[in-house]
Amino acid sequence: MIDGKLLELWRAGESARLSRLKAFLSIPSVSADSAYAEGMAAGADFVAGQIEASGGSAKRVETPAGRDAVIGRWEVCSAARRAAAEARGSGSAGGPQAERGLLFYGHYDVQPPDPLELWQTPPFEPTVRDGAIYARGASDDKGQVLCFLEAMRLWREAYGGPPAPVTAIIEGEEEIGSPGLPAVLDSQRDELRGDFVLISDTAMWDRKTPAITYGLRGLLYYDLRLHQASRDVHSGMYGGVFANPAVILARVLGGLFDADHRVAIPGFYDDVSSPSEAEREAWSKLNFDPERDLLDPIGVAEPYGESGYTTLERKWVRPSLDVNGLFGGYAGEGAKTVIPASAGAKLSFRLAPNQSATRIAEAFEAWLERQPVHGCRWRITRHGAAEPAMTPMDSPWVQAAGGALRAAQRALRIEGREPVLVREGATIPVVAEFEKTLGLTSVLMGFGLSDDAVHAPNEKFELACFDLGCLSHAAMAGELVG
Amino acid sequence: MIDGKLLELWRAGESARLSRLKAFLSIPSVSADSAYAEGMAAGADFVAGQIEASGGSAKRVETPAGRDAVIGRWEVCSAARRAAAEARGSGSAGGPQAERGLLFYGHYDVQPPDPLELWQTPPFEPTVRDGAIYARGASDDKGQVLCFLEAMRLWREAYGGPPAPVTAIIEGEEEIGSPGLPAVLDSQRDELRGDFVLISDTAMWDRKTPAITYGLRGLLYYDLRLHQASRDVHSGMYGGVFANPAVILARVLGGLFDADHRVAIPGFYDDVSSPSEAEREAWSKLNFDPERDLLDPIGVAEPYGESGYTTLERKWVRPSLDVNGLFGGYAGEGAKTVIPASAGAKLSFRLAPNQSATRIAEAFEAWLERQPVHGCRWRITRHGAAEPAMTPMDSPWVQAAGGALRAAQRALRIEGREPVLVREGATIPVVAEFEKTLGLTSVLMGFGLSDDAVHAPNEKFELACFDLGCLSHAAMAGELVG
Repeated sequence: MIDGKLLELWRAGESARLSRLKAFLSIPSVSADSAYAEGMAAGADFVAGQIEASGGSAKRVETPAGRDAVIGRWEVCSAARRAAAEARGSGSAGGPQAERGLLFYGHYDVQPPDPLELWQTPPFEPTVRDGAIYARGASDDKGQVLCFLEAMRLWREAYGGPPAPVTAIIEGEEEIGSPGLPAVLDSQRDELRGDFVLISDTAMWDRKTPAITYGLRGLLYYDLRLHQASRDVHSGMYGGVFANPAVILARVLGGLFDADHRVAIPGFYDDVSSPSEAEREAWSKLNFDPERDLLDPIGVAEPYGESGYTTLERKWVRPSLDVNGLFGGYAGEGAKTVIPASAGAKLSFRLAPNQSATRIAEAFEAWLERQPVHGCRWRITRHGAAEPAMTPMDSPWVQAAGGALRAAQRALRIEGREPVLVREGATIPVVAEFEKTLGLTSVLMGFGLSDDAVHAPNEKFELACFDLGCLSHAAMAGELVG
Repeated sequence: MIDGKLLELWRAGESARLSRLKAFLSIPSVSADSAYAEGMAAGADFVAGQIEASGGSAKRVETPAGRDAVIGRWEVCSAARRAAAEARGSGSAGGPQAERGLLFYGHYDVQPPDPLELWQTPPFEPTVRDGAIYARGASDDKGQVLCFLEAMRLWREAYGGPPAPVTAIIEGEEEIGSPGLPAVLDSQRDELRGDFVLISDTAMWDRKTPAITYGLRGLLYYDLRLHQASRDVHSGMYGGVFANPAVILARVLGGLFDADHRVAIPGFYDDVSSPSEAEREAWSKLNFDPERDLLDPIGVAEPYGESGYTTLERKWVRPSLDVNGLFGGYAGEGAKTVIPASAGAKLSFRLAPNQSATRIAEAFEAWLERQPVHGCRWRITRHGAAEPAMTPMDSPWVQAAGGALRAAQRALRIEGREPVLVREGATIPVVAEFEKTLGLTSVLMGFGLSDDAVHAPNEKFELACFDLGCLSHAAMAGELVG
């Protein structure tokens, strides 16, 4: 529910809300690169400050991987509870009774900003252009985290606190695979109360259609380096007499795929689960056009992938394998005639529901060992492994999220479409972890758009999405008053 | 010939000679990168200054590619001529009568110095350690160019000038494939007098054994870039739905070789000439051990290459294909889950005598066009093409070079071995160009060593090689007095 009081305060707070968004996005909290350690500390400070400013209590917990997760707790406010019950009585709200409340999850760390030269405005100098704010982390995930924090602030200002118990854990290691979070979930299990986990780190179906995501792919990420000579050597003096690691690396990477662009590792597809007929039918109603909806916006002319599947299936239910980076030898201007001492690649798998990251890692590493490298030596580093995840489509909390989205659409007088239930190709490693450690299912209520350029230069978050996100989170708390 | 007077002056000049070598090596004359334009100008200044200081006249000619070549001319000095004839009369010298004299060729430009972090001392701060001087260009080719210039200085100090006519052209574009030199050879053909071309840009057979090189491989160098999306995109949101250019590039590069590590481009080997029986017999006497002489010094445990050939044949008479660099996407610390907008490679062929760079370029580019890239787009840049070269083994100037090397060994009281006639796997693009434009054969009398780390971090030139080079060039001028 969004009542008149919430809405009035919401309208009055626009300018301050944007200032807080800019302040959050100005912080260079890049978790992948230790050079940004100060930005990471500042990111955690900001989150803790916002929790306290909205009437919550904040606690910082350093993970075994060395960065702080911030835990926030807001107690139920009886005035808010009465207001929500009243709204429910008038028919404008109503959902399941939350005993333990909601547990919000988000992350304040962001992807590295490079290549810097492709940003129109600097990644940590947030700039509003044409109704969107541009900055690293705008959509993934700081803007969405702030939607939740602003909702808590709104309830605080209107009634003194939220109408249902709310807990949040906002971590700083999501972009590197959340290596330290499992230990925090385990050690803080008594603090992390909730009937379910609410996550805002996904996208809407389109500008008009909110989406609740119930399936995610997993992730397995590698840094592969192939070493040969003790130094770069002259390609004239040595060309043809020993195995060039850049050539061998290319052959190995090229050999990962068969002619149908299927991953050539034996057994790779064995555990992949097929979508149900009900799912396939629901997806056919989404009116998804691969070119228009996915490829045109990023300048790709031609879909291509595992044969026998549609583009939507390739993205949501089939695993994929990508080379995320190539390096080694000379990459500068002009010509340098060297055989590089080493060559490397960043490589990652997206795992489909029911695949096991552990088993795929074993199969891949065994396959790699069988590839002839003719005297070269591998150095293989695994950066995070996250299991795929599926949430029951009939969960009551999914229904509550639908109610909250509709309430926010009404309050904003958006001529929006009915929220849809979808899957996602991306990975939120903690979803499987919450299930495993706390036994909680997750509801993914996201406010990004597919053209937000997350993980890329000129990442943005549209201000209309920010508005919808703030009010949806505010409404969600009201939906939990039975 | 090296007479007593030359030798005495030589001994007295050691400290000043080393200072000049350090001054030359301090200049960052990197031709491949326009950021070093000032270093290139300073390199040409230094060479012109040395020519004039040794009694020659210097002229700078800007090539169409924008860097200066320096032409030097030293007139015959009659006192020197008499001294050389006298030495010949006493049996200590004697070679063919040079009508037009010798035309020396060398280059003052150097390879880029990166990766900088692997240098023990900075690349442009020459440092003497254990009898060798370490700096970018120490062996390739500044140290060897200075051997020649020091020889001219020695004749100038001893007799007022050299005993035979000497011309030199010292260019600044060798490391980028000498794009502007053909035009200079053509426009300056009247100035570039000589009976043959003398080049010092190769290596000795070993520390004890000087080598005269008569065969060189050619070079064909490419920068290949494969473009797809208009920006880097999230590998979770897009993984599996379109062709990742880093994956496709790896497949294409991997497909360049067959299972026998032969280049898979149709017709690639058609024109390769086989070595003669006489050559094979001579090579068998070289006592060449691939592991000991070639691979162990650079930390490579295992030879590998085109099947059916020895390591020496793979290096000298067979073409090769190398990836010199790989780039694209994320190469930093940790994980970044992107599909790169583009991926690229530096790629080069070493061409065997009788192959044609033009025909191989056509065959390669046609092959490339046939590879499926599934919507990706190539951007292909060719950086220089140099034909392979062969010089007649029975040339009188080759004999003169042998005499000069022996004379220098005697003067230095080195217990050296007889000079050997060899081929080389590397490329000196101008050798074919001198043949084509001026009709001159080349004699390659080099003073590098195979472990000099040319084109790599910690390049060095041994001071004993510097000494042998200086006196061999001094003796060479004497050998040309009939």
